Amino acid sequence: MGTERRTVSRISISLDHDLLASLDRLVASRRYANRSEAVRDLIRARLVEREWKGNKAVIGTITLLYDHHVRDLPHKLTSMQHESKAQVISTMHVHLDHHNCLEVVVVKGRSREVAELANALISARGVRHGELTASSLGRKI
Amino acid sequence: MGTERRTVSRISISLDHDLLASLDRLVASRRYANRSEAVRDLIRARLVEREWKGNKAVIGTITLLYDHHVRDLPHKLTSMQHESKAQVISTMHVHLDHHNCLEVVVVKGRSREVAELANALISARGVRHGELTASSLGRKI
Amino acid sequence: MGTERRTVSRISISLDHDLLASLDRLVASRRYANRSEAVRDLIRARLVEREWKGNKAVIGTITLLYDHHVRDLPHKLTSMQHESKAQVISTMHVHLDHHNCLEVVVVKGRSREVAELANALISARGVRHGELTASSLGRKI
Amino acid sequence: MGTERRTVSRISISLDHDLLASLDRLVASRRYANRSEAVRDLIRARLVEREWKGNKAVIGTITLLYDHHVRDLPHKLTSMQHESKAQVISTMHVHLDHHNCLEVVVVKGRSREVAELANALISARGVRHGELTASSLGRKI
Repeated sequence: MGTERRTVSRISISLDHDLLASLDRLVASRRYANRSEAVRDLIRARLVEREWKGNKAVIGTITLLYDHHVRDLPHKLTSMQHESKAQVISTMHVHLDHHNCLEVVVVKGRSREVAELANALISARGVRHGELTASSLGRKI
Repeated sequence: MGTERRTVSRISISLDHDLLASLDRLVASRRYANRSEAVRDLIRARLVEREWKGNKAVIGTITLLYDHHVRDLPHKLTSMQHESKAQVISTMHVHLDHHNCLEVVVVKGRSREVAELANALISARGVRHGELTASSLGRKI
Repeated sequence: MGTERRTVSRISISLDHDLLASLDRLVASRRYANRSEAVRDLIRARLVEREWKGNKAVIGTITLLYDHHVRDLPHKLTSMQHESKAQVISTMHVHLDHHNCLEVVVVKGRSREVAELANALISARGVRHGELTASSLGRKI
Repeated sequence: MGTERRTVSRISISLDHDLLASLDRLVASRRYANRSEAVRDLIRARLVEREWKGNKAVIGTITLLYDHHVRDLPHKLTSMQHESKAQVISTMHVHLDHHNCLEVVVVKGRSREVAELANALISARGVRHGELTASSLGRKI
C-alpha cells in the first residue's frame, strides 16, 4: 500500500578472480549489504556525473561559509537566490560562532543554471568558502 | 558594536603580465568585486582541502538521495547519525517526488569521523546517491 | 604460451529497470563492448582510489608544465626526483614552445611518497602547473 | 640571449591576519619560495580548470593501465590515437610486470577532443584503469 513496485532485473557480470576478491573487500570495508548494492552505487555515481555534464535537470546543494557581519551580505545572497533561473527549494542556516555562518542551499534546475547560481554566491564578498555538490532528482538513476 | 574588528594586512604579489591579464579575466567572469577577493577565495579553497587532509576539526555536509519507501531506512539513517563520533548539527529534508527524498546533513568533527559517517550513510541500502562536501569551521581561514 | 590464464567468475547483480536502462545508455555512449566491461571499469576506478587513500604501493604520473629558462630549474627537478623515497621509473619531455616544456614523470612507491615528490616538484619556482594522476600497479585490481 | 623577458607586475592583495598566517603556513609546508609563488600557483590551477571547461586548446596526459596480452589491444589503442581529431604528441610505455603495462599519452587539442580520445582509450577492452589529466599549453597562464 503506497509502495509502488519497481521491476527488478538480474544481469550477469563476468570478472576475473582478483577483481572479484577486490570487490568483496570493498563491500566488506564499506559495509555494503551485498555486491549488488555496491555495484548499483558505482553505476549511479557515474550517472549523476553524466547528468551534470549533459546539462540535465538536477539537484545541487550549495554549501556557503560566510561572515554575516559583512555589510548587506545576507540580503545580497537572498536576492541572488530569488533572481536565479534555477529554483531554490530550501535553505538551512547554521550558526558556527560569532562571525561564521554555514548556509546550505538546495537548488533544482539545469546543471548550468545551478552552477551559475553557485558561482555568483561563492564569489560574493564575505563568502569565505563555498562548494557546489552534484546530486540528482533520482528519476533516471 | 557586536562586530569585532579583523586586522587587515596588505601583501604584494609579483606576477608576469600574461598571468595578471588572466587573473583579471577570472575576476570579471566570476564577478568578483576585485583581485583581492578572488585571491582570498583561491587561498581559502586550498586551506579547506588541507584541513580535511590533516584530519582537523571541520564542517561537512552530506547530501543523500534516497527512496523513503525502503523498509526502515529513515530510522536506520537517523540511528547512524546518533551513533557517530562526529556531531550532527542539523538536517534538512526535501521531498522530490513520490519515491525520492533529498536529505542534507550538516556534521561537525574531525574530518575522518565525518568521512566515516558519510560512508556509512551513503552505503545504506536504499540510498541511491550520496556525496560528502568539505567545508570549514572558518576559524583558521 | 606466455599468457597466464586468469580465472573468470560470473556474478549476478540485481538492479531495477530504470537503473538497467541507464547502465545500457552508459555502455552505448562510452562505447563499452558490454555491461561487464563497464561495471569492471567502475569497480577498478574505485579500487584505485582506495589504494591511494590507504597508502598502498601505487603508480602515479606527475605532469609538469614549466619554463625551462628559469635558472637551474631542470637540474633542480632532476635532483628532487633522485632524492625521493619513491622510485622514478621514467620521464618524458615535450617541447611546447620557446618557453614552455611539458614533462611527465612516472613514479612508483607508497602513495604518500609519490604525493610528496609531486608536491615538491609542483611547488618549485618556474613550474607553472602540475598535476598528480593516480594509477595502479594493477596487481589487485 | 634566447631568454625573452616577461614583464613582471606587482599587485597588492588585502587579507585579514588569520588568512595571512594560514597562507604563510601553506608556503612553509609546501616549501614554496615565497608568497608570490604560492599565489601564482593557485591562480594558474584555476585558469587551467577554465581552459578545460571552455573547450580551449589544451594539453592532456592520458594514463592507461592495460594488459598487453589482450588480443589486438596495443594495435587498437594505436589506431584510436591516429584517428583522433586531437593530436597525439608523444607516448611513453612502462612495463610493470608480465601482464601490466602503463602507457602515458600526451595529447594536444580542444579539451573536448582530448576528452573524447581519453574516453575511447579508457573504455577499450583490456584497459584496466585510465585517467585523463588536464594541463595547459602555457600560453595564457
